[in-house]
Amino acid sequence: MSIHRLAITTTAKREIIDVTQKITALLKEGAEGLATVFVEHTTAAITTADLDPGTDQDLLNALDGLLPELNWQHQHDPTHAPDHLLSSIVGTDVSVPFQDGQLRLGTWQRIILIEFDGPRDRNVSVVLN
Amino acid sequence: MSIHRLAITTTAKREIIDVTQKITALLKEGAEGLATVFVEHTTAAITTADLDPGTDQDLLNALDGLLPELNWQHQHDPTHAPDHLLSSIVGTDVSVPFQDGQLRLGTWQRIILIEFDGPRDRNVSVVLN
Amino acid sequence: MSIHRLAITTTAKREIIDVTQKITALLKEGAEGLATVFVEHTTAAITTADLDPGTDQDLLNALDGLLPELNWQHQHDPTHAPDHLLSSIVGTDVSVPFQDGQLRLGTWQRIILIEFDGPRDRNVSVVLN
Repeated sequence: MSIHRLAITTTAKREIIDVTQKITALLKEGAEGLATVFVEHTTAAITTADLDPGTDQDLLNALDGLLPELNWQHQHDPTHAPDHLLSSIVGTDVSVPFQDGQLRLGTWQRIILIEFDGPRDRNVSVVLN
Repeated sequence: MSIHRLAITTTAKREIIDVTQKITALLKEGAEGLATVFVEHTTAAITTADLDPGTDQDLLNALDGLLPELNWQHQHDPTHAPDHLLSSIVGTDVSVPFQDGQLRLGTWQRIILIEFDGPRDRNVSVVLN
Repeated sequence: MSIHRLAITTTAKREIIDVTQKITALLKEGAEGLATVFVEHTTAAITTADLDPGTDQDLLNALDGLLPELNWQHQHDPTHAPDHLLSSIVGTDVSVPFQDGQLRLGTWQRIILIEFDGPRDRNVSVVLN
């Protein structure tokens, strides 16, 4: 078992960052096991995605329109509530098997960080088991 | 590897329970690895969240309005269908790295159980790897 | 640690497949640990669910109506965008504890693959830790 931390800098209020290559770089040649990726924040998410041109923007637009329009109670700043709620709904972790030192992703499948309240410096923990 | 089971009693039809402290209590001093939290039910979910005052209610309200209004087929009790569907969409597990005997959560990030059909006694399994 | 790959053939554009029995079949008698199930595709998802009669169709209907109606930019085929987006939102993995050679699922809780763009041959990786 090994545990790692990646520093990811985002550049917009809402943005999708492909972190696949950074995870792959942690894998030793020939290694097999499970890579668990976790974002240590409440206004970001981790999942997998197709990133064909335009599809990253489609995902951000879909998430913008996913929640009902309500009067949020979040005291820190009510306009900020959806950033937290989308993080909880999409989720903050994914676990991906690897073998022969490569992630077992589909051809077009990427591991992504979704930023809901950037630009920010984000910490992503990775456990290889 | 060790496997644990937590008993959580909920007190309302829909409710958010912070289970972070119960997970942390399972970690040995100085230990590092991965904590996987799984709720053994089809009308509850596990995720991470910001729990500033009001934000727990915002999340419950957002989930109440998330699904389209349809005539559900679920035979046991159609009004009960959204409880199952939200469990499947939010998800029933999260995996969080830990190091030095502490979960690597963000400052305001908590591990939560979302109750969709309480009050109930709920079983949550935790695997430390 | 052992790593496995299941081949799942789907038979409709959108469909729910119960994969619980195939995961259980990988567990050795008396074994305990964590089973992580990951679908290696961008138009499918993995989660847990209640599968009472009608509830599988309820889940497919809910997901069909979950996203806002937008003009998608996805270049490969815009009508195909929701298949990708739902995969990212529901998620492509779940981790379930097991003990005494049995998954620690609730009585009615099943591990499901959701097909968003079938019929297809799908690869599902399973890591037992």
